[in-house]
Amino acid sequence: MKNNFKVIAFDADDTLWVNETFFRETEEQFCELLADFSTSEEIMKELFATEIRNLEEYGYGTKGFVLSMIETALKITDNRVPQPTLEKIIKLGKTQINQPVELLEGVVDILEYLTQKGYKLIVATKGDLLDQERKLKKSHLENFFHHVEVMSNKNKADYRKLLKHLDIAPEDFLMIGNSYKSDIEPVLEIGGFGIHIPFHVTWEHEKATENEEHPNWIKMDSVSKLRSVL
Amino acid sequence: MKNNFKVIAFDADDTLWVNETFFRETEEQFCELLADFSTSEEIMKELFATEIRNLEEYGYGTKGFVLSMIETALKITDNRVPQPTLEKIIKLGKTQINQPVELLEGVVDILEYLTQKGYKLIVATKGDLLDQERKLKKSHLENFFHHVEVMSNKNKADYRKLLKHLDIAPEDFLMIGNSYKSDIEPVLEIGGFGIHIPFHVTWEHEKATENEEHPNWIKMDSVSKLRSVL
Repeated sequence: MKNNFKVIAFDADDTLWVNETFFRETEEQFCELLADFSTSEEIMKELFATEIRNLEEYGYGTKGFVLSMIETALKITDNRVPQPTLEKIIKLGKTQINQPVELLEGVVDILEYLTQKGYKLIVATKGDLLDQERKLKKSHLENFFHHVEVMSNKNKADYRKLLKHLDIAPEDFLMIGNSYKSDIEPVLEIGGFGIHIPFHVTWEHEKATENEEHPNWIKMDSVSKLRSVL
Repeated sequence: MKNNFKVIAFDADDTLWVNETFFRETEEQFCELLADFSTSEEIMKELFATEIRNLEEYGYGTKGFVLSMIETALKITDNRVPQPTLEKIIKLGKTQINQPVELLEGVVDILEYLTQKGYKLIVATKGDLLDQERKLKKSHLENFFHHVEVMSNKNKADYRKLLKHLDIAPEDFLMIGNSYKSDIEPVLEIGGFGIHIPFHVTWEHEKATENEEHPNWIKMDSVSKLRSVL
């Protein structure tokens, strides 16, 4: 793969720091809170359906997730969920918003390496603007990045808008992230490059079939391996 | 006031289109839903206190507002709020998210005028990224603006970051908006210029004391009056 990119963009959640794990922990506690009404499997099925149904209205991020949990709790209990349980769900959300930022292994080293190499680095992440700014601040990684692009979604049109904003051609753009569907596929489709670094947990909605044949992307198991190609 | 600005930024909510009115309508319906438990005055007092308490965690925008309404409903009823009422609160939020965009009078004309004059226009708005992108799309104003900056907050540090991103000096920046506290005061404090166009409704949290003496801002009663100074 080429290595003379004008901009290298990093996804944030589960690429720079742990995220999905916190959602999973919250989901587990959510299922426990509703254990008198249904099985974890049924609750999770309903929660996922609710999240997908609400995606257009709420987008990605913790606040929409909490609203979907409340909606699911009302639905799955046929409006019999005890009110204190709803209070606890709101608290689960606040705990998740205030979670400490846990950097993935090797992240600081590789950002130092890429900065020394002279690459222009940005963060390109979807989710809630405030959540992501808060996490970036807590991460102490801010100075490595030229700026942060919080995107409401990561489809082809969103990446085209990003490239226009960056004023670069697609072939000068490399996206690095843990989601093939959000970080790699749309970038390849508009002529850019991708490096896929899977995280051990993937949200159901982010699962995708990979285009093994496409020459513009590679997969690696750790961010540290970026040294070997950049 | 000078008129050779390199970038003119417009606030969005209640500057380009109606927003606060929708929040007020939702609040009224919220108070009606809880009328068996308390007076509108008490409910509104508790809701406002909850919103301010949650501001750091939720930021601005409809989703945080809905979560604060749910929390207020639980608190003000001592956890006796009927579950179907909570369902209705969630629906109030979705209705607000899907509200049509109602442009303020004279907006299209003045944007055409400023574009013809060769000004570089941007939108600088706080709130929920997805909400704001959705409203901009519905407004059909997208083409007037070079790009949109959704800010998690509008204090001095946020504006400094914006100017760095725009790569311009403060004196080349004019901010136009309905909130003295968010759109004018911090911009003046970092050396920029402001035009304050109040909307007839102001959220309690946005109320502020105006610095009448400062030379870098003026107030006008309609966006159409911008022609007289730009």
